[in-house]
Amino acid sequence: MEHGFIAWAKQRAMRLPKVKLGIGDDCALIASDGSDWVVTTDSLCEGTHFILDECGPQAVGRKLVGVNLSDLASMAASPVAVFLSLCLPRKSADLIGAEIYEGVCQACEKYNVAIGGGDTNVWDGPLVVHLTAVGTASQAGCWLRSGANPGDKIVVSGRLGGSLLGKHLEFEPRLHLAKALHPLGIVQAATDISDGLGVDLLNMTVASRCGAEVDLDLIPISDAAVERSKTTGHTALEHAIGDGEDFELLMAVDPSRIDLLPKSIDGVPLTVIGTFVSRTGLWSRSKGGVMQMQPRGYVHG
Amino acid sequence: MEHGFIAWAKQRAMRLPKVKLGIGDDCALIASDGSDWVVTTDSLCEGTHFILDECGPQAVGRKLVGVNLSDLASMAASPVAVFLSLCLPRKSADLIGAEIYEGVCQACEKYNVAIGGGDTNVWDGPLVVHLTAVGTASQAGCWLRSGANPGDKIVVSGRLGGSLLGKHLEFEPRLHLAKALHPLGIVQAATDISDGLGVDLLNMTVASRCGAEVDLDLIPISDAAVERSKTTGHTALEHAIGDGEDFELLMAVDPSRIDLLPKSIDGVPLTVIGTFVSRTGLWSRSKGGVMQMQPRGYVHG
Repeated sequence: MEHGFIAWAKQRAMRLPKVKLGIGDDCALIASDGSDWVVTTDSLCEGTHFILDECGPQAVGRKLVGVNLSDLASMAASPVAVFLSLCLPRKSADLIGAEIYEGVCQACEKYNVAIGGGDTNVWDGPLVVHLTAVGTASQAGCWLRSGANPGDKIVVSGRLGGSLLGKHLEFEPRLHLAKALHPLGIVQAATDISDGLGVDLLNMTVASRCGAEVDLDLIPISDAAVERSKTTGHTALEHAIGDGEDFELLMAVDPSRIDLLPKSIDGVPLTVIGTFVSRTGLWSRSKGGVMQMQPRGYVHG
Repeated sequence: MEHGFIAWAKQRAMRLPKVKLGIGDDCALIASDGSDWVVTTDSLCEGTHFILDECGPQAVGRKLVGVNLSDLASMAASPVAVFLSLCLPRKSADLIGAEIYEGVCQACEKYNVAIGGGDTNVWDGPLVVHLTAVGTASQAGCWLRSGANPGDKIVVSGRLGGSLLGKHLEFEPRLHLAKALHPLGIVQAATDISDGLGVDLLNMTVASRCGAEVDLDLIPISDAAVERSKTTGHTALEHAIGDGEDFELLMAVDPSRIDLLPKSIDGVPLTVIGTFVSRTGLWSRSKGGVMQMQPRGYVHG
């Protein structure tokens, strides 16, 4: 339901004051008398986003921070502080709460982010963890989803698909890549791959009022996607396009300066997989020619 | 469990970067190259903080905004934007989500606050709603819990107790009072009454390393507290001291300038109910003399 809800929600809030960039991108931008502030918020629900008995509460805490920092990275913002809110099941509330917090601390320490505060509740429902991350925008501005132009190259970081085999819990939010790429001034638009390459690319084209043509042979496929394909009945390529929670960067890069794009940064490959085009929609190019492409991604709700 | 958890959490986060004011006050303060930012976050869980079938989702949305704006008011901060996160039960997710959002919009419109963004999830658990509010601090600084000194007068806004009869759902976050009082420069410390007068006053004395002596005859008792006392076996005074969710301001006012304190602002009374003292703990003064006072408030968890 998320897309319809977002459209309606934007409309309903028309009469309210506005922030500089509101509902619909990876983060919101708030203007201030100093640097712009960048804010993002995400909840993880037991049973939907994680199976507590399988992954344990520390991994949930680390994932929660990672998901939000990935949103900040996709706007090339610098994280400052996170705010944690816990709804803890009554049974073992203290233990679970402490373990989640430990995971949050580990991730915050790694990425040099403060824990600004939070809220803890004990209730009769399953575990819900919630985090808001705030950061600052660079003076040179943020990457938005809406900045892609026809002709821009489609670039992804890392290799895609199969995150369910582990990466969805333990991944690197691409803050480091964003910090290295942003000063080059070659990235016109960006998002992170959370719902799957297909869905997130489609969202980017809609925000940018253009289309995208993907060369299927160029998509970097992860070993996990190959592994998954052995049991699911889907191809590794389908997993790379459709699986969510890669938490890689998806970018539109200025074609006239594409030679400035590093091949990789600290071992993480940066791969050109196609071109944004003026014809709206998602298109795939392969030996068989150009065809309409199904996003096949995970859709919220 | 909240107090022990907070103490441990502060300790665990020692090695992380710090914000200007972190875990433990009503809001966090984050320094920036412009005005300081003020951030607060609160979740409401179905069955714990509201009974959905009794109050309806719009009231939940309004309460959620009110609770967070009350925290901003208690620091004399000006709200800028809120971020909403919903975990919606699968049954009627669309309808409940839209109604909560409607309530959030109504409250945001009333207090001139933007909705900056959010996150919606559908899951198999009960309803959890979550809001983060961000605002800016005045150049003259914020009210903290920790600023009370022995000799300061204890002042409360409004009348206390019995909020379960309705006020806990429909209340005015005291932004207007804070805006009127802050420029007078007479308030040394403040918090909002969310856990009950006794508990919140105790928290304030602990943060300020002092004690408080309350004149029980001066506590302004609400009609709802009187009404509640008819059926609960507790006195109206006990309800005024112990009931949570009044969302009134509790302040420490400079005794040398107490004459600058208005008797009321727009019909909301401001009442001196006692004095902060150097002897730690909560003390009550009445016809019977001075006695140790039980906070009798609602304790999280």
